[in-house]
Amino acid sequence: GYAKVDLHRELRQGVPEVIYGSGKTPEQIMGIASAMRKNGVGTILITRLSTEAAEIVEKAIPLDYDEVSRLGIAGRKAEITSSGIIVVASAGTSDLPVAEEAARTAEALGNKVTRLYDVGVAGLHRLLSKLDVILKARVIVAVAGMEGALASVIGGLADCPVIAVPTSIGYGANFGGVSALLSMLNSCASGVSVVNIDNGFGAGFLASRINHLGDKE
Amino acid sequence: GYAKVDLHRELRQGVPEVIYGSGKTPEQIMGIASAMRKNGVGTILITRLSTEAAEIVEKAIPLDYDEVSRLGIAGRKAEITSSGIIVVASAGTSDLPVAEEAARTAEALGNKVTRLYDVGVAGLHRLLSKLDVILKARVIVAVAGMEGALASVIGGLADCPVIAVPTSIGYGANFGGVSALLSMLNSCASGVSVVNIDNGFGAGFLASRINHLGDKE
Amino acid sequence: GYAKVDLHRELRQGVPEVIYGSGKTPEQIMGIASAMRKNGVGTILITRLSTEAAEIVEKAIPLDYDEVSRLGIAGRKAEITSSGIIVVASAGTSDLPVAEEAARTAEALGNKVTRLYDVGVAGLHRLLSKLDVILKARVIVAVAGMEGALASVIGGLADCPVIAVPTSIGYGANFGGVSALLSMLNSCASGVSVVNIDNGFGAGFLASRINHLGDKE
Amino acid sequence: GYAKVDLHRELRQGVPEVIYGSGKTPEQIMGIASAMRKNGVGTILITRLSTEAAEIVEKAIPLDYDEVSRLGIAGRKAEITSSGIIVVASAGTSDLPVAEEAARTAEALGNKVTRLYDVGVAGLHRLLSKLDVILKARVIVAVAGMEGALASVIGGLADCPVIAVPTSIGYGANFGGVSALLSMLNSCASGVSVVNIDNGFGAGFLASRINHLGDKE
Amino acid sequence: GYAKVDLHRELRQGVPEVIYGSGKTPEQIMGIASAMRKNGVGTILITRLSTEAAEIVEKAIPLDYDEVSRLGIAGRKAEITSSGIIVVASAGTSDLPVAEEAARTAEALGNKVTRLYDVGVAGLHRLLSKLDVILKARVIVAVAGMEGALASVIGGLADCPVIAVPTSIGYGANFGGVSALLSMLNSCASGVSVVNIDNGFGAGFLASRINHLGDKE
Amino acid sequence: GYAKVDLHRELRQGVPEVIYGSGKTPEQIMGIASAMRKNGVGTILITRLSTEAAEIVEKAIPLDYDEVSRLGIAGRKAEITSSGIIVVASAGTSDLPVAEEAARTAEALGNKVTRLYDVGVAGLHRLLSKLDVILKARVIVAVAGMEGALASVIGGLADCPVIAVPTSIGYGANFGGVSALLSMLNSCASGVSVVNIDNGFGAGFLASRINHLGDKE
Amino acid sequence: GYAKVDLHRELRQGVPEVIYGSGKTPEQIMGIASAMRKNGVGTILITRLSTEAAEIVEKAIPLDYDEVSRLGIAGRKAEITSSGIIVVASAGTSDLPVAEEAARTAEALGNKVTRLYDVGVAGLHRLLSKLDVILKARVIVAVAGMEGALASVIGGLADCPVIAVPTSIGYGANFGGVSALLSMLNSCASGVSVVNIDNGFGAGFLASRINHLGDKE
Amino acid sequence: GYAKVDLHRELRQGVPEVIYGSGKTPEQIMGIASAMRKNGVGTILITRLSTEAAEIVEKAIPLDYDEVSRLGIAGRKAEITSSGIIVVASAGTSDLPVAEEAARTAEALGNKVTRLYDVGVAGLHRLLSKLDVILKARVIVAVAGMEGALASVIGGLADCPVIAVPTSIGYGANFGGVSALLSMLNSCASGVSVVNIDNGFGAGFLASRINHLGDKE
Ligand SMILES: Nc1ncnc2c1ncn2[C@@H]1O[C@H](COP(=O)(O)O)[C@@H](O)[C@H]1O
Ligand SMILES: Nc1ncnc2c1ncn2[C@@H]1O[C@H](COP(=O)(O)O)[C@@H](O)[C@H]1O
Ligand SMILES: Nc1ncnc2c1ncn2[C@@H]1O[C@H](COP(=O)(O)O)[C@@H](O)[C@H]1O
Ligand SMILES: Nc1ncnc2c1ncn2[C@@H]1O[C@H](COP(=O)(O)O)[C@@H](O)[C@H]1O
Ligand SMILES: [Mg+2]
Ligand SMILES: [Mg+2]
Ligand SMILES: [Mg+2]
Ligand SMILES: [Mg+2]
Ligand SMILES: [Mg+2]
Ligand SMILES: [Mg+2]
Ligand SMILES: [Mg+2]
Ligand SMILES: [Mg+2]
Repeated sequence: GYAKVDLHRELRQGVPEVIYGSGKTPEQIMGIASAMRKNGVGTILITRLSTEAAEIVEKAIPLDYDEVSRLGIAGRKAEITSSGIIVVASAGTSDLPVAEEAARTAEALGNKVTRLYDVGVAGLHRLLSKLDVILKARVIVAVAGMEGALASVIGGLADCPVIAVPTSIGYGANFGGVSALLSMLNSCASGVSVVNIDNGFGAGFLASRINHLGDKE
Repeated sequence: GYAKVDLHRELRQGVPEVIYGSGKTPEQIMGIASAMRKNGVGTILITRLSTEAAEIVEKAIPLDYDEVSRLGIAGRKAEITSSGIIVVASAGTSDLPVAEEAARTAEALGNKVTRLYDVGVAGLHRLLSKLDVILKARVIVAVAGMEGALASVIGGLADCPVIAVPTSIGYGANFGGVSALLSMLNSCASGVSVVNIDNGFGAGFLASRINHLGDKE
Repeated sequence: GYAKVDLHRELRQGVPEVIYGSGKTPEQIMGIASAMRKNGVGTILITRLSTEAAEIVEKAIPLDYDEVSRLGIAGRKAEITSSGIIVVASAGTSDLPVAEEAARTAEALGNKVTRLYDVGVAGLHRLLSKLDVILKARVIVAVAGMEGALASVIGGLADCPVIAVPTSIGYGANFGGVSALLSMLNSCASGVSVVNIDNGFGAGFLASRINHLGDKE
Repeated sequence: GYAKVDLHRELRQGVPEVIYGSGKTPEQIMGIASAMRKNGVGTILITRLSTEAAEIVEKAIPLDYDEVSRLGIAGRKAEITSSGIIVVASAGTSDLPVAEEAARTAEALGNKVTRLYDVGVAGLHRLLSKLDVILKARVIVAVAGMEGALASVIGGLADCPVIAVPTSIGYGANFGGVSALLSMLNSCASGVSVVNIDNGFGAGFLASRINHLGDKE
Repeated sequence: GYAKVDLHRELRQGVPEVIYGSGKTPEQIMGIASAMRKNGVGTILITRLSTEAAEIVEKAIPLDYDEVSRLGIAGRKAEITSSGIIVVASAGTSDLPVAEEAARTAEALGNKVTRLYDVGVAGLHRLLSKLDVILKARVIVAVAGMEGALASVIGGLADCPVIAVPTSIGYGANFGGVSALLSMLNSCASGVSVVNIDNGFGAGFLASRINHLGDKE
Repeated sequence: GYAKVDLHRELRQGVPEVIYGSGKTPEQIMGIASAMRKNGVGTILITRLSTEAAEIVEKAIPLDYDEVSRLGIAGRKAEITSSGIIVVASAGTSDLPVAEEAARTAEALGNKVTRLYDVGVAGLHRLLSKLDVILKARVIVAVAGMEGALASVIGGLADCPVIAVPTSIGYGANFGGVSALLSMLNSCASGVSVVNIDNGFGAGFLASRINHLGDKE
Repeated sequence: GYAKVDLHRELRQGVPEVIYGSGKTPEQIMGIASAMRKNGVGTILITRLSTEAAEIVEKAIPLDYDEVSRLGIAGRKAEITSSGIIVVASAGTSDLPVAEEAARTAEALGNKVTRLYDVGVAGLHRLLSKLDVILKARVIVAVAGMEGALASVIGGLADCPVIAVPTSIGYGANFGGVSALLSMLNSCASGVSVVNIDNGFGAGFLASRINHLGDKE
Repeated sequence: GYAKVDLHRELRQGVPEVIYGSGKTPEQIMGIASAMRKNGVGTILITRLSTEAAEIVEKAIPLDYDEVSRLGIAGRKAEITSSGIIVVASAGTSDLPVAEEAARTAEALGNKVTRLYDVGVAGLHRLLSKLDVILKARVIVAVAGMEGALASVIGGLADCPVIAVPTSIGYGANFGGVSALLSMLNSCASGVSVVNIDNGFGAGFLASRINHLGDKE
């Protein structure tokens, strides 16, 4: 009764439905995952899965679970299915969970991922010294909290699509990520689009979709 | 003194700097455009150009100007340089200016564009009857004001990247586009990213960048 | 001293006062319920009742308590007193508690209820395959968090009143339900009105009132 | 190109599409109205029509236009098709345009309407002296700006559905209608739902839908 | 070091400084209270004092502590020093803590207080049956959460100053008391002023100041 | 039809209804004023009356009109009916219109008013040199825009009720008066209450009510 | 009556009061300026002075008026009184008015100013090529609208105090400068502080104060 | 992997990178601190360090830890390197943690600091009696929550730069520090700039930078 799994989705959109773990009981998660497996879904992603829930789920379904990103992956390991490289860049050490959610989602969907972490604009040389990595990317995911300037700076350097992910990292007038969100929406650099605050999964998913375009046609 | 045109940009990013017409005098616009022409920029885009300013600028620089989108294009006409199709879909008649800014920007950057206008979710059959167009797109730009639900519905049907553009169309609790913006950021469909309210240019630009990826590699 | 139960209400409005359990001690709840029983109230509804409070109250007053919706019902079971059907539709699995609060409230007030759960717009076929249910409804309660698009889509399909309930489900720029609330207030579909975020009770109550209108006259 | 009139709507929902006049040129309005007439739509409603636009449209299509509510009605006059009464109550003199938009919309859709204007809660006897009118209503539309308390007070007196319409009337911390909107969403009276700020049309439309329910079954 | 108690205040303003207990350690509170006693302050008020802190403080300084309002009073009991009556009215059972903070503060400052609790506008007869109490008041404190309509209704009935106290009671779009705050600031009734959300102390203090004016001159 | 003047108000509350001129046509204003005169109202206040409307109204009803405060007064001049003094203090030259609305309203209701203008906290000596005036007041109205600190500073010096009026004067992050409003609501000085942004009328009215209390008993 | 010029200020703070021109009549401005001159103030600054007002004021008082920054300066020209250099950097051409207000204010207060305009982060090389200018500054004023990233990038490069000025330049989700304001308040670079949106004057004034510190001691 | 310590910073900006302790594990903190020590950083600041984390870190690296400000300092004690005095003033007892973070940061960076605590504007004499301290300062840090008026009052008295730090102290309409933040941004006193809510570290850092300017040139 509680769930109507969208089993058409793999057919319709190439990628199966993903389970949003937050606010679901381990029982609900296992129920949905089982239904998906019975319908032949090969790789199942569970996002925002707490360590406690993961431990329960793991007993029924073997799970590749990562504590930092809270991402759980059941089923067969993804093969690399695109020649392009996705770069995931993040501003500070505290943005790691969101950046890892993006990176691991992209990897689980068959992408090569290069990580560029702790390259925030307060020490610009850290980013500039990696200009070659940026210029080789087919898509870039830019993860930043606080003032979120990283997205604009990368947007001004890169020649590929940039997906900006504001994080809720910060305090006071960051208002749970609003400061970074508004920064990114108002980026003076063209070619930048934005997903929800802390939505590493969404960025990784979209990056994968873009990265597979070139090969698809 | 007033402007330091980014003449490296074409080299660095493949596309020259674009002139943001709003809040600039016709004289400033002509000054910047002249500097760009002297430096060999072939096609010059001027966004948010008022009819009055356009008339003055046109005397000095021949301009392909469109009143609805307020987009002015100087220089040689773009050739189609990508085999993919960009679909620009909009919810209501009043979203036209933003949708046209996206469509014309994409065309000026060398893309084939299919327009799907007035297909808002209050009369779903209008969109569903065009499912074939949606499934053939390489990128979709979804333009909507009010509750912005169009982006989510398209996001659930398409298998390509969807760029959502909230518009300021509406009144009362739409707060100048905030309702559509939040809707789109919270889209339950994966593969959707968002640009600023009324930023048709940004969406068209990004759509073009994505559409040219496949051919670039 | 602490409460002045509105005992006229059943006379004045056909339905007795309902106890809002949140922020009341079990003792206060029992005190109010006892006063109501002494005054001949047949069925007593207690909303937002925690499991802990329910256990204490149950010792004094037999209670039909549901953990998901946190609704407690004391007194005689309601009979169906309207021929119309109320459809309660919800977007995702996480919206269940609010949807159930609406459904159970309506049932406790004498209505037939059909549930349509997990029919969010990201997988439109799930909703479209139930078009017959939607067209047979006399009132529809549409429950959704995140971007709340479900209300608009149902509003465009149905020919009866639609009561939209935004939920606080989501994160980041959903701002505790504001994104769904604004979506629903700005619905481009006519015939949609809105109650407070997470107010399943209010929606169920109003749906019942509308559903009993036809028979009342 | 600019509009895809939803001509199915009368069939699907009993009432034809309504033209939202704001932000459309008189030419666009006439184009849409003509398309509707050709398809046999009997009565055409145009909301938020400026006096200037009305004068131009009237030359092509005979129009019953009201300056206060900015509502224009083309085509045959509606007959009363429901036995119920819709009461439209408003708090202050300045809320008149929104109240009239609701009242005239309801009349155009075949309803009997009773107006109760300038009955704000600062002088409660004005409302209480009309208690009989309130108790005879099948639906009530409560229109108020500033603190919007009228909806709660009526909600506590009436035994029928109350549709609350916040208006943007006021200044300072009313924030363009937000104060009344929040008041109404948080109404402590049950049976109240809310439409967008200044959305008299929406309230009139929904009131009509509810008022016709009883007779429909 | 940590506090510079304003010992002039009793001289300057007739009432000594009040200790804001929230966020202070029991040690800091005792330190400040001791300094005040040494300087001859007769009655010491401590607001927002948690039960735990009260227990510790009570060991050093005899305290009249009330758990509902979290108000602690040290020193000699206040005598009634004004002939006027302060009415404290509240909308719902959950507003009790704030209403009691106002009432007890006023009593501690030498005022006669009449309590009118649970008289919210959803059941208007509860308030109207106490019209005599309202008309006898020299000042009224109106405490309400949710839509805060009580202040306007009382403001329209009374002929004395009304101090409105919004409370944070409610959920969803009440935004922690913002809905009631805005309602009260936009009251259509004249003679109403507002203090901070949940600031029962401030209202009781101001009510006392107004109530003592008549006798002072 | 358009207005139901609250003619009981003078009886009920001692002061007749006041006409809120904003958004009313000169015809409506004259209609309401005439109705009031016929019912024996001696002094009629019209607030927020534009110069243009005043000129038209003046032809029918002799008017004492002040351009700065936009206040119009018809009928017999008020006599001083209280021995207390109301002090109206304002922070800057630009707050004058609001301060004058308060001062003239109070005068029209029979009060002695002392004006203290341009005494903002950036030059504290201007206020401190008037300490005697502040200490003699029975009520103080403190009018300030920008950061609104004047209310707190006066609140810390005075021993009488302080009514704070935030103004919309300022720019940028003052958000139309929100900065001053929040400052005043959060005043660390006790005895301060707040009315709506720019509501000089409300402050003058309440000040008069308080100032007449002492004499009433 | 309308103004109490703070004539002590030059003595107290070294710099005379500055006239805020916005919302003052030319007559008020001339009155205040005359009072200042009579009291021996040498240089008088008038900010936010419209061209129309400037023309009137100029007839009475010789004025050095600049249309872009809307700054008027009366009296003797300032001499350079500090050896340090203030750098005023701005992101885009549209930020010019605010940047010029800062620069001219600083010059009028006796500072050497170097301008770095149109060096926004979308084309980083423009800023990096001026690194020497940045490293020679004693104070930097960073002016930017949209996402305001310029302040963080400069803050990460410079070793002197950085005063960030958000501007209201942009549209949509920049909310009149809020996006840049929040960015700057959340800057991950240390040594950055912020003034109000569009407050070029405040930044120029503070920069001058800091720049004169070294020489003062 | 998780951190790319900006080891250039001491060279580039004179002061080494500071560790933001919030949201980092003790292990991450120790890792970063070790890397810094290996690179010869003499004094290491760790802000927002919880007592629990401090205890773990202290085992590996000797730490001067303060519980109130949650600041930890490793390495050699700073010597006074500027002749100027930094005054840290705070409004209430509850602002202590933020004020101490500013004061200790400044001391750790080689400054003489004078503390002026609990001098809020509700008892102005407390501040005025310290006017000599204010006039001797080379920089002032003004820390205040609630209405944040302290910054404006100090700004009007001092002749040196004032850095305002809004705190989140307060409740209700202080919205976690927004009221103080807006007050400070809108300060009518010149020479005041603002850092993020509760950002004592940022204020202390900037104060030090300004205080060392005079000696640097
Ligand atoms: N309508 C637009 N919306 C957002 N960004 C734009 C728009 N038009 C141009 N731009 C960007 O603004 C930059 C130019 O800004 P400016 O230096 O102020 O002319 C260009 O490089 C574009 O990337
Ligand atoms: N979950 C709910 N949400 C909104 N209103 C409610 C809810 N439950 C009860 N109510 C209303 O709150 C009133 C009781 O409030 P109280 O006096 O605080 O118990 C009832 O008369 C209902 O109309
Ligand atoms: N509950 C309260 N709400 C608002 N202000 C209060 C409250 N309790 C005390 N105060 C005020 O706060 C001041 C003390 O603040 P503090 O120095 O932080 O203890 C007192 O002088 C009172 O005027
Ligand atoms: N400037 C004003 N600000 C707030 N309330 C006002 C103002 N002027 C008049 N009022 C109130 O508004 C009521 C009249 O509203 P209305 O029926 O719209 O004319 C009067 O009874 C006054 O109490
Ligand atoms: Mg780092
Ligand atoms: Mg349409
Ligand atoms: Mg689902
Ligand atoms: Mg009226
Ligand atoms: Mg109750
Ligand atoms: Mg002044
Ligand atoms: Mg530029
Ligand atoms: Mg204190």
